[in-house]
Amino acid sequence: MAEPKNNPTMKDVAREAGVALGTVSKVVNGIPVGEEYRIKVEKAIKKLGYQLNSYARGLKSGRTMAVAVLMPNLVSPYFASLVNAISRVLSAKKYHLVYFGTDYDPTQEQEYVRMAEQQKVDGIICLSYNPRLVVSDETPLVSIDRYFGAKIPCVASDNYGGGWLAAEKLKENGCRRVAMLRIGSRLPHEPSKRRDGFVMACEALGLECDQKILDDGAPYQEFIDFLHGHYNNGKLDFDGIFCVTDSVAHQIIGTLGEMGLSVPGDVQVIGFDGIRSFGDMELTCSTIIQPVEAIAETCVNLLLSEDKSQLPSLVCLPVKYGFGGTTLK
Amino acid sequence: MAEPKNNPTMKDVAREAGVALGTVSKVVNGIPVGEEYRIKVEKAIKKLGYQLNSYARGLKSGRTMAVAVLMPNLVSPYFASLVNAISRVLSAKKYHLVYFGTDYDPTQEQEYVRMAEQQKVDGIICLSYNPRLVVSDETPLVSIDRYFGAKIPCVASDNYGGGWLAAEKLKENGCRRVAMLRIGSRLPHEPSKRRDGFVMACEALGLECDQKILDDGAPYQEFIDFLHGHYNNGKLDFDGIFCVTDSVAHQIIGTLGEMGLSVPGDVQVIGFDGIRSFGDMELTCSTIIQPVEAIAETCVNLLLSEDKSQLPSLVCLPVKYGFGGTTLK
Repeated sequence: MAEPKNNPTMKDVAREAGVALGTVSKVVNGIPVGEEYRIKVEKAIKKLGYQLNSYARGLKSGRTMAVAVLMPNLVSPYFASLVNAISRVLSAKKYHLVYFGTDYDPTQEQEYVRMAEQQKVDGIICLSYNPRLVVSDETPLVSIDRYFGAKIPCVASDNYGGGWLAAEKLKENGCRRVAMLRIGSRLPHEPSKRRDGFVMACEALGLECDQKILDDGAPYQEFIDFLHGHYNNGKLDFDGIFCVTDSVAHQIIGTLGEMGLSVPGDVQVIGFDGIRSFGDMELTCSTIIQPVEAIAETCVNLLLSEDKSQLPSLVCLPVKYGFGGTTLK
Repeated sequence: MAEPKNNPTMKDVAREAGVALGTVSKVVNGIPVGEEYRIKVEKAIKKLGYQLNSYARGLKSGRTMAVAVLMPNLVSPYFASLVNAISRVLSAKKYHLVYFGTDYDPTQEQEYVRMAEQQKVDGIICLSYNPRLVVSDETPLVSIDRYFGAKIPCVASDNYGGGWLAAEKLKENGCRRVAMLRIGSRLPHEPSKRRDGFVMACEALGLECDQKILDDGAPYQEFIDFLHGHYNNGKLDFDGIFCVTDSVAHQIIGTLGEMGLSVPGDVQVIGFDGIRSFGDMELTCSTIIQPVEAIAETCVNLLLSEDKSQLPSLVCLPVKYGFGGTTLK
């Protein structure tokens, strides 16, 4: 064991305290010993500046007090805010966060899961882009936004309710004909429900609704073409647009400006996520706000729960509407 | 050792391969053995699904292949982009990144350094807000933006050169009287040189320059008051403003708009950092771009360099100008 020489060992503590090595081990691992022994050991630990080697503890307890978080990157503000919130929750519980950036690469993601398992982390929280992800039964995993079967809890926003809320807000604000613009994975995931909720609410509210759905990687130009296809004599067919993310909304607002249309005067726009400029300033658009703190808290609680026999397979957390200047209110 | 029972051990591998335990240990730790033995061991490892316990490896080698990164948070896009870049560099070198969010709290930061040391990480990369940070000599530390003495390498942008470049660009774009707006720590840090470089360049270029410096935590209103104090008959005294960060620039551009001034028509604005909308879209303003990838790469290389006897105490990396629509070009 390659301990630096000036690092006191458990043996040094035992010698200093005048107790058996086993007694020190018990105190260090929180196993009850006689009060006077405990005090002696704690005094010796303090005096020598003994630091418990977490690796030794990991071997002993089978717990490493570390959780791996796999996220595509930290450049996208939504992913960054998720990792930020998970970090706060883990830290309050004295857990470490080991971060892996998958860059949307399924192979890389699988490799990181394997590495995390090797590292004997106590669990993995993952926003996956690998529909065939293989995880050993021994390492607890909680998934964000992706359903992997009843054994792996999935935590997401109430995406369906969020889509519904967006339609309600556009209707309340006087819209008569709206469009839903979506770009994202070809595979149905929790966020796909944003469209379902929106479309169903339009039906219920009697709001005429068009859709333009792009697969991930399709050129943004297709949205521009779609809008121009619905543009005649300086007027757009739609007076409201629901975009699948704030990031898409940001681009669409730029395109509408280039077409000479004013937002929200001519067209009202609602995004999804709740991204703020520079992380903590104003909302970048009117939006459906994802409950990032509640998602983080739920993920960690499910991951670290002692009784894994009764975990939910899906938890959807309520969203809310945020006014960001791109709707009338 | 609380290994799950269905986890094969090194002993199981030795039995399966028909070799000595020491041979398995050598193969697993990359120490050369006869070719036929290596093949036998690798086959047995594959067959049994043996996973090397990183904790056991950590105890043996004294290396944990983990680096702690301490950052105030991941909500600020600049901090998030730094951690993102550091994660990529570490990952390519097969190191894990353990993330700690300090929330600007010096006590919390010190506690995290202690935890990282206990965890026996191979090093710490820190953007510190604790001028009295105590780090043991045994754990290598590289500091971003903060100088902690000759023994701890500090990596930063060429902040002085960046300030100078901002003044040059405003001059080139026809400005005659400029202002520097700074908000930040009361203590002089590497980023404080942004102002020094700007002021010196204004002097050299014959550009009249005012300054308004706020301490961290001072109300933004003081900037508004400063601007109104230089505003007469619909005209501002300045035709160019250099802001210490893109985030300040974003707020100032909003204030100028409320005052009825157009950017860049009436006033040109340059920020610092190089933040893009939603992480990867357009620059949020004309700006001095920090070399995030180079900073990350330099931090990791210094931290993991074998020979620690000849490390530089400060490395400043070149910045560049990015046009973001808030200057004429």
